[in-house]
Amino acid sequence: MVVYLVGAGPGDPELITLKAVNALKKADVVVYDRLANEEILKHAEGAEFIYVGKKAGEHYKSQEEINQILVDEGKKHDVVVRLKGGDPFVFGRGGEEMLALLEEGIGVEFVPGVTSAIGVPTSAGLPVTHRGVATSFTIVTGHEDPTKSKKQVKWNFNADTIIILMGIGMLEENVKEIMKYKDPKTPVCVIEKGTLSDQRIITGTLEDITQNNIKPPALVIVGHVVDVFKKARS
Amino acid sequence: MVVYLVGAGPGDPELITLKAVNALKKADVVVYDRLANEEILKHAEGAEFIYVGKKAGEHYKSQEEINQILVDEGKKHDVVVRLKGGDPFVFGRGGEEMLALLEEGIGVEFVPGVTSAIGVPTSAGLPVTHRGVATSFTIVTGHEDPTKSKKQVKWNFNADTIIILMGIGMLEENVKEIMKYKDPKTPVCVIEKGTLSDQRIITGTLEDITQNNIKPPALVIVGHVVDVFKKARS
Repeated sequence: MVVYLVGAGPGDPELITLKAVNALKKADVVVYDRLANEEILKHAEGAEFIYVGKKAGEHYKSQEEINQILVDEGKKHDVVVRLKGGDPFVFGRGGEEMLALLEEGIGVEFVPGVTSAIGVPTSAGLPVTHRGVATSFTIVTGHEDPTKSKKQVKWNFNADTIIILMGIGMLEENVKEIMKYKDPKTPVCVIEKGTLSDQRIITGTLEDITQNNIKPPALVIVGHVVDVFKKARS
Repeated sequence: MVVYLVGAGPGDPELITLKAVNALKKADVVVYDRLANEEILKHAEGAEFIYVGKKAGEHYKSQEEINQILVDEGKKHDVVVRLKGGDPFVFGRGGEEMLALLEEGIGVEFVPGVTSAIGVPTSAGLPVTHRGVATSFTIVTGHEDPTKSKKQVKWNFNADTIIILMGIGMLEENVKEIMKYKDPKTPVCVIEKGTLSDQRIITGTLEDITQNNIKPPALVIVGHVVDVFKKARS
């Protein structure tokens, strides 16, 4: 009776940790969202799989329904793995699942993953920090809960690098916000399908990046570390 | 003739990725810093090991010397692994090593790791983001290059959560800076030796956290996500 909240990493199936593989091997049940690459499910050979992600044209499960599935499965089985892309606590709503499980007296274990916010730029050779260029970085969701009446995110982050996850749908609005605080010429890098074989990298500036045809899933990196990346590629 | 810049993860030897293990298995030479746990070096059986971290009472190597070692080894061998704690590009000076190698025409591959900035709180059950509590977080070094005449870090980060790496030596100064912008009652969590068997967790607030006897290496997390962690433990 334990639920492992496990990070699956950014996409490349080799970017999963040994600890995550070991949890999957022990799993009776794996509850998973849409993953960048389903190949990692093979580590849980013989387990039951429950998909709770979005499906085209179908009702998808609310967070409350997912919490209830985890509680029910947690009570029935010895080992349940709740698998999430990236790290379970970086915009993964893992905190809510943890609290729901603990309230029902179910044990929870945590297995961090490589968040795509860092793993995607690192894999591409883009350092999110660099001596003399960036000693801080902010990771933010570009896709706030649209049901919220008041926007929580303000874009006046004073970090040297800004990394936006799930940021494509609202890119135009968010870039406008950032330009209130940063020079429009600040370099930007967009990485589509990071760490996967069909990865695509686009560079530009705050004022022109949206002129590209960008398709999600993609990560947005804003700051002069993009110049370090461009120097390395030149 | 390729150098892999590889992240070793936050400490727990199981928190290394399959990709890092595969790079270590192929390595002719492994160039490594002080690691939280040297057990992971076993994956590079038969390789030559070059330690370039600090050693008590001895001269330790400058970044320029390390760059030169990587260039020399990269020219001599098929596969060199440069192993760094956490992720190679999160305050790891991996960017400088990348540029030095590329300048000499040596191929570089990148293997991200679980940064301790996220992996340590996640392993402890502390979500760095949480719905309605934190939709952004900033990761910053608490230990700026002391040779810099002008401090680069300003502490008015407007992110909901602030995570400080290498932040113990300067904790008092940095907490004072943060209190200029955040309520002194803002909760703080310090995790010493994160993910290791002798991990220790201390909670408090900005105004009282420094009253504890904290020893490095430790991670500092500032923000109301610490309340979520405390709720989960209660």
